[in-house]
Amino acid sequence: MADSIKRRGRVLVHTGDGRGKSTSAFGVILRMLGRKKRVALIQFLKHEGGQWGEVRALQQLGLEPIKTGDGFTWTSKDLDETQARALHGWARAQQVIASDDYDLVVLDEFTYLLDFGWLDTAEAIAWFQAHKPPRLHLLITGRNAPKELIDYADTVTEMVKVKHAFDAGIKARAGIEF
Amino acid sequence: MADSIKRRGRVLVHTGDGRGKSTSAFGVILRMLGRKKRVALIQFLKHEGGQWGEVRALQQLGLEPIKTGDGFTWTSKDLDETQARALHGWARAQQVIASDDYDLVVLDEFTYLLDFGWLDTAEAIAWFQAHKPPRLHLLITGRNAPKELIDYADTVTEMVKVKHAFDAGIKARAGIEF
Repeated sequence: MADSIKRRGRVLVHTGDGRGKSTSAFGVILRMLGRKKRVALIQFLKHEGGQWGEVRALQQLGLEPIKTGDGFTWTSKDLDETQARALHGWARAQQVIASDDYDLVVLDEFTYLLDFGWLDTAEAIAWFQAHKPPRLHLLITGRNAPKELIDYADTVTEMVKVKHAFDAGIKARAGIEF
Repeated sequence: MADSIKRRGRVLVHTGDGRGKSTSAFGVILRMLGRKKRVALIQFLKHEGGQWGEVRALQQLGLEPIKTGDGFTWTSKDLDETQARALHGWARAQQVIASDDYDLVVLDEFTYLLDFGWLDTAEAIAWFQAHKPPRLHLLITGRNAPKELIDYADTVTEMVKVKHAFDAGIKARAGIEF
């Protein structure tokens, strides 16, 4: 195995309908920051109030997330604006990745752009293949990761919901659920 | 639904053979610390050098993990000592949980004690039911979570390995893999 293969950055995908896709990404970020690595976090389609706790803790560690969403929710009626903001986020992500200023770039909830057809999966992968610095680790989260993305990734984990307190009608608790 | 049910602490389990069980727990810890919640992390059966990055970042945030392992690995020959240390860790965990000094207690890699038969699952659950402060969130990670633990938990996520870079023979990278 060539050394260039051993040393190249990983492409990691966290998908599935269970909890822990983004949360696990925050754990990876924590690990990288603890090792003094340079991390960029780009958050797609997140409600502004979401992930308040994680973001505050990351800010304490010196990381300011890049937000691109518009408070998107599943009941959002203005998909055009949401789509426009998401694609703006993709352009921002491309700048960040191509800059080669980071050891890890996290595209949180990025799969929605692909799943909704706002961004062509083959086009996105071709862009990564052409422009991702070889040593950069790329971590993508979100439901319904397309097969082409799974084929492209080195490591894919599916978070499967076995049982969830919401199903039992228990109210969400700040800190644990959001 | 009674208010006491709504406000009670959650029991969360991260299990499965995929990546992200502990990493996701670190994300939950990050979220709780960001919300100024009191967190205890008890690490069972971990190699001393493992999770170095996460631990360093958590220390920056003011959390000192409690370690109980002895550098256990799958090739360990001295199971008696490992078992003894693990059970010492369980006694420590019981103190921490019963103290009511925390909002979240994480028992990282705790399922191994149950899976290996070092601690009886029904006995552990009976202890939680009798001694866990009602508002305390308890998060347990590890492979092969027993069915009784899954029945007891509010939220269970199984991390499923879809694809892993190790399978392709790529060398582990500090920060991403450990």
